[in-house]
Amino acid sequence: MYHLENETYSLPDEEHGGGMAPDQIRLDFSVNTNPFGMPEGVRKVLSDAAEPGGYYPDINSCLLREKILDHEKNHYQGTQSLQISQIVAGNGASELIMALAHAYSKVCSNTYPKTCLKNAVMLQTPLFSGYERAFSASGAKLLFMEHDSDFSIAPDTPEKIVEEKPDMVVLCQPGNPTGAMIEEHLLEEIVKACIRTGSLLIVDECFIAFTENAGARSASRFLESGCSLVILRAFTKLCAMPGLRLGYAVCAEEKTADRLREHLPEWNVSTIAQAAGCAALEDEKYIPDTTSRIRQERERLRSRLGETGFKTVKGEADFILLHSDIELYEKLLQQGILIRRCSNYRGMPRTGYYRIAVRLPEEDDILLEALEEIVKGIAEEAEE
Amino acid sequence: MYHLENETYSLPDEEHGGGMAPDQIRLDFSVNTNPFGMPEGVRKVLSDAAEPGGYYPDINSCLLREKILDHEKNHYQGTQSLQISQIVAGNGASELIMALAHAYSKVCSNTYPKTCLKNAVMLQTPLFSGYERAFSASGAKLLFMEHDSDFSIAPDTPEKIVEEKPDMVVLCQPGNPTGAMIEEHLLEEIVKACIRTGSLLIVDECFIAFTENAGARSASRFLESGCSLVILRAFTKLCAMPGLRLGYAVCAEEKTADRLREHLPEWNVSTIAQAAGCAALEDEKYIPDTTSRIRQERERLRSRLGETGFKTVKGEADFILLHSDIELYEKLLQQGILIRRCSNYRGMPRTGYYRIAVRLPEEDDILLEALEEIVKGIAEEAEE
Repeated sequence: MYHLENETYSLPDEEHGGGMAPDQIRLDFSVNTNPFGMPEGVRKVLSDAAEPGGYYPDINSCLLREKILDHEKNHYQGTQSLQISQIVAGNGASELIMALAHAYSKVCSNTYPKTCLKNAVMLQTPLFSGYERAFSASGAKLLFMEHDSDFSIAPDTPEKIVEEKPDMVVLCQPGNPTGAMIEEHLLEEIVKACIRTGSLLIVDECFIAFTENAGARSASRFLESGCSLVILRAFTKLCAMPGLRLGYAVCAEEKTADRLREHLPEWNVSTIAQAAGCAALEDEKYIPDTTSRIRQERERLRSRLGETGFKTVKGEADFILLHSDIELYEKLLQQGILIRRCSNYRGMPRTGYYRIAVRLPEEDDILLEALEEIVKGIAEEAEE
Repeated sequence: MYHLENETYSLPDEEHGGGMAPDQIRLDFSVNTNPFGMPEGVRKVLSDAAEPGGYYPDINSCLLREKILDHEKNHYQGTQSLQISQIVAGNGASELIMALAHAYSKVCSNTYPKTCLKNAVMLQTPLFSGYERAFSASGAKLLFMEHDSDFSIAPDTPEKIVEEKPDMVVLCQPGNPTGAMIEEHLLEEIVKACIRTGSLLIVDECFIAFTENAGARSASRFLESGCSLVILRAFTKLCAMPGLRLGYAVCAEEKTADRLREHLPEWNVSTIAQAAGCAALEDEKYIPDTTSRIRQERERLRSRLGETGFKTVKGEADFILLHSDIELYEKLLQQGILIRRCSNYRGMPRTGYYRIAVRLPEEDDILLEALEEIVKGIAEEAEE
């Protein structure tokens, strides 16, 4: 959604959240980007974007990838031996997901007219719909993991992997829309299973920097385990710059990074996104400061939601998965508050679950007040 | 290439031109973007990029595609019935090339473990290397067209298409690095051959707006011919905004556009590129004014090159393909002038051909002077 000379154009994006014009929406809790807005350095890059806009992007995103490498080494365990060649920059994590799907969905012989075989991918449920979309488009066979009643990965998943031998496995931590981290021992068992089956393990950690002690809990600790691991991270949510499109993959094996790059277009990361990403990583305070404040506010919001009578799913991301039998979406929308219905996530019930971003305390208070009013109204109706 | 807080990072991009730091290069004739710089409206969008940078992009690029539709209808023949659904926006034309390759390189059955067959693509030679790269990565079988001594498409190409029945055919007009338009009758015969064989015909017209009477000569006149046609255009060169990444495809058939979209990541076009593209198209004077001045300057540059003793290949783009037995690249680089060696284009000789962008008259004069000096120096050497 953007404005241009008094024109406002938007379509509500039911599938992903967001997408509504600000004159319809007072507060958007459906999009879960950092509520503190982009780092000052990124803002500065953007205020002077005409110059980089006139250059071709560095086709290899070298400076950006160097800064990402430093960032990984400084913040995530298991990255001591990481090389720049293991890092791939993308036009948002979504581009890397599509490229992974295209790179690994089929095994082909190099001669014509010999055939190629479809690969199978096992996906966590629920999960960002982009994975199913990308792997469907690229012709993979889709397998879906089972989950417990709180939407956490079923404990027998490692055995299922060994049994099904999928070519690829996709996990997300913290999960979307649950916000839940994968239990440490279970993640380890899944890694071991993937080593055994030779499966490529993709772990989406686009939200992990919002969690406490992310560096030790990231799948990066398995980078040298022998697992064909790919970790995806993005600047989109963490640095509140969704309009710029910037994400990256950390690959345990250089050959994975090379294959991924083969399936990406030339100059895929704009000059502006490269410069903005560098500026974001140069700001040493922004990420620790804003994420610790968001964690604090998350706890307050969750607790207040509980007091109002809502159930929340245990999680740690900059959003909260909420359960309610009350149809909240339309009621909040009438007040200009947009939240994310979770009805279109595979493996989730059609109704009753809502994803709510953690925003600034004063914004969250408006949401809380609106929710309290809704609950009160229903209680009064019931009494009548 | 870009700067960031006193850091300058660049790698010379031998494959595509450009990529060198400005302190090494006084004048860059290897990159062929509009020498007049981006439209004022685009510059304005960029100076205020922080706001759109904070929004998710419109996932469907609706406003941009509406403006593209208007632009097509106002400037290109055969577009009267064009619908917005036939237009696909991309993160540069290069993203659309990769997506086309991924979407059409294989035919798969929908069941597992059934197999999929490789498709064959017939490529013009010489051609932007991205096509060969994308179709190789996606597993297509590559076939190459023959060309005449001036690098124009061999006249028996329509028969070859009927004979080989490639699933896809790729043309480029004006060609890169030749700058040559495809002869009108030959293009018509290729279209007819593709209708006969059911081949998807991709015509890259990223440079066509620089040519005279582009609207009547574009392959768009065949949009309603029954051919499965895809025309690619980009803002990169035309509006001097390579750093932003923005291109689009015009598809004769809606099903092609749908399939292409399936293979593109979500939010592929940044908010900034969407807004910049809209601003570029709102400027009614920029394209006609700058392109007519470039055409005039091209003729002057070509004529002066001829007077200096260089052979040039007949063409019309904002660049000139030059032949010389003198090794010009290193000699010019010593003077801080970068040109594009054509040794890595498939189908071109390893030496002797150079692509030179048409720049502003005062810049072209510096190049001409340097070339005259080189020629003079060699003549003097020969006399000694």
